[in-house]
Amino acid sequence: MRFTEISAIMPINMKVSELGEFGLIGLIERVVAGLEKASLAQRRLKVGIGDDCAAWSGDGSIELATTDTLVQDVHFHTGMIGWRELGWKSLAVNISDIAAMGGWPTYALVSLSLPGSAEANDIVDFYRGMVSLGNRFGVAIAGGNITQSPVVVITLAVMGKLGRGLKTPLLRSAAVPGDLIAVTGSLGLSSGGLRMIVTGMGLDISTARLFRRKHNMPIPRVTEGLVLRQTGVMCAIDISDGLVGDLAHVCQKSGVSAVVRLEKLPVHSRLRSVFPADYLDMALYGGEDYELLFTAKPRVMLLVKRKLKCPVTIIGEVVPKHRDMVTVVDASGKPVPYGLGGWEHFKVSAVIPKS
Amino acid sequence: MRFTEISAIMPINMKVSELGEFGLIGLIERVVAGLEKASLAQRRLKVGIGDDCAAWSGDGSIELATTDTLVQDVHFHTGMIGWRELGWKSLAVNISDIAAMGGWPTYALVSLSLPGSAEANDIVDFYRGMVSLGNRFGVAIAGGNITQSPVVVITLAVMGKLGRGLKTPLLRSAAVPGDLIAVTGSLGLSSGGLRMIVTGMGLDISTARLFRRKHNMPIPRVTEGLVLRQTGVMCAIDISDGLVGDLAHVCQKSGVSAVVRLEKLPVHSRLRSVFPADYLDMALYGGEDYELLFTAKPRVMLLVKRKLKCPVTIIGEVVPKHRDMVTVVDASGKPVPYGLGGWEHFKVSAVIPKS
Repeated sequence: MRFTEISAIMPINMKVSELGEFGLIGLIERVVAGLEKASLAQRRLKVGIGDDCAAWSGDGSIELATTDTLVQDVHFHTGMIGWRELGWKSLAVNISDIAAMGGWPTYALVSLSLPGSAEANDIVDFYRGMVSLGNRFGVAIAGGNITQSPVVVITLAVMGKLGRGLKTPLLRSAAVPGDLIAVTGSLGLSSGGLRMIVTGMGLDISTARLFRRKHNMPIPRVTEGLVLRQTGVMCAIDISDGLVGDLAHVCQKSGVSAVVRLEKLPVHSRLRSVFPADYLDMALYGGEDYELLFTAKPRVMLLVKRKLKCPVTIIGEVVPKHRDMVTVVDASGKPVPYGLGGWEHFKVSAVIPKS
Repeated sequence: MRFTEISAIMPINMKVSELGEFGLIGLIERVVAGLEKASLAQRRLKVGIGDDCAAWSGDGSIELATTDTLVQDVHFHTGMIGWRELGWKSLAVNISDIAAMGGWPTYALVSLSLPGSAEANDIVDFYRGMVSLGNRFGVAIAGGNITQSPVVVITLAVMGKLGRGLKTPLLRSAAVPGDLIAVTGSLGLSSGGLRMIVTGMGLDISTARLFRRKHNMPIPRVTEGLVLRQTGVMCAIDISDGLVGDLAHVCQKSGVSAVVRLEKLPVHSRLRSVFPADYLDMALYGGEDYELLFTAKPRVMLLVKRKLKCPVTIIGEVVPKHRDMVTVVDASGKPVPYGLGGWEHFKVSAVIPKS
């Protein structure tokens, strides 16, 4: 498609806030596809814009690369997360993208934009946090860039690869009707942690530590992603935008719809007891859990449950595409009203679920 | 080195602005080296923090990766560069790092942090500029990330690789006394372009176009870098901080000093005529030329001059390390006083050369 054609069909005379994050990504995807000339790199590219990672055929295996940005006062507030936690989290969210493709992470590049008034000690703590997590998964901090900026902006790029012999990574676009939908771990704890931090709630020490750790220092599901891919799972995404939001990405990319059973959602007992009125909303829409959401045929799902050491909960099923991408139903099978979910960064107001 | 030892020897109770960009990078290098555990990725890493790119042994060849950030009102002003030019330049500065290692670029990841008030059309133009340059070198835009931010922050990560069989990239640390020092193209045009744009100087159309293009749409020296590496050159850097600043990086990493002959500097005739009082300062300290600066033995230099199609000028020589890293001398061999040069992003005032 030529650029003139794109202009003709796309409503691009808009502010980014009107178009929204995903509208803008879709537009960019079309512009790049329309203008880019064939090249060796192009031909080897297996997954471009629009999944958790880019993927291309390397010399011996499929190479993966991802990038994610945290902006001060948009994604974090320096009063609510320590620098060490921030370093950990910045790397975790990127490693999680590699995990969601079924790969193992290898190298990280770190771009730090900082005000001159930042403390060198804080930056050292930031790197300490990053290296602690990197050491867990054998990720080496290979380089980066430091520059001045009015606010702290942290962008990491993380590289990784698939196991030898594997030709395709886990994809958002590989869900098929009849697949079961499952998640690792439990949902909503990160959101509970954020709520606790923002409101300054007083909780007992062990609950407070659990909530804070889940929000500020998530552990990406790397080994789980590797096992999923090796067990024959084809479709996964990591939960960063919230269960419903990320499941909607899967549905959109796969051309299917999904049914989620509210009573099946894995919710930690402490989340339920601290937030009795909100825990389901947190599990459905909270975001930043960095658990893996995946779909697979029932017999593959059985294998997965046997092989994975972490909790795996089947929460619904993939159905043929219909009007709603994601339908949440209660125990009686009745649909529960919900919003679109997901962190739409540019939308002025997110749709708040009414349940 | 353990972290406690680092704290003991490092003066880290400072603001980032006091420590400076390169002080901070050195500190980070030591912290990461001190804390990182051995891993497969670590063992395969050939070049970590502190060169133009990270480099590691891939399955078939040496892999390269780099990242660079442009921040609104720090690195560019939206009134002084068009969005298309900005897309081009964002990719160019990263590709230039790959060129400086003697590699060919393959994939780019693009992280865009934008205010919601940004125009979707501008973002399309940004990608048009990026893809135009990418098409020249067969670089595919493989993915990225979009997020909200009070100011525009653009971070690209670009991957690349060395030719098969080549075990080491061009390095900053490979200069040895007796090497000649050379640069591709001419120096200072980008700086002249910036001056023209900032002051709104009225120049004839073709000069204005030349200056603007050199500042806003530099063409990285990819083929030249490949030829350098294949011809046996071992040491190079791209000129982003200014000739003297970047040569000082080479000297520091190589443990040598350098002598630059003022009368040898390749300066475009139009730069000389438009800025008769300043053209030498622009050539020495201007920055953002994205030419290659390299060193090699005289017989290798002869081969290079024969093989490269672009102008190659020998501007000085590498000497054993002494007090000054870089000495600029006039035609009679007398040292010319100069400042440190380089974009020290966090230093409040740069030292202005007095020549």
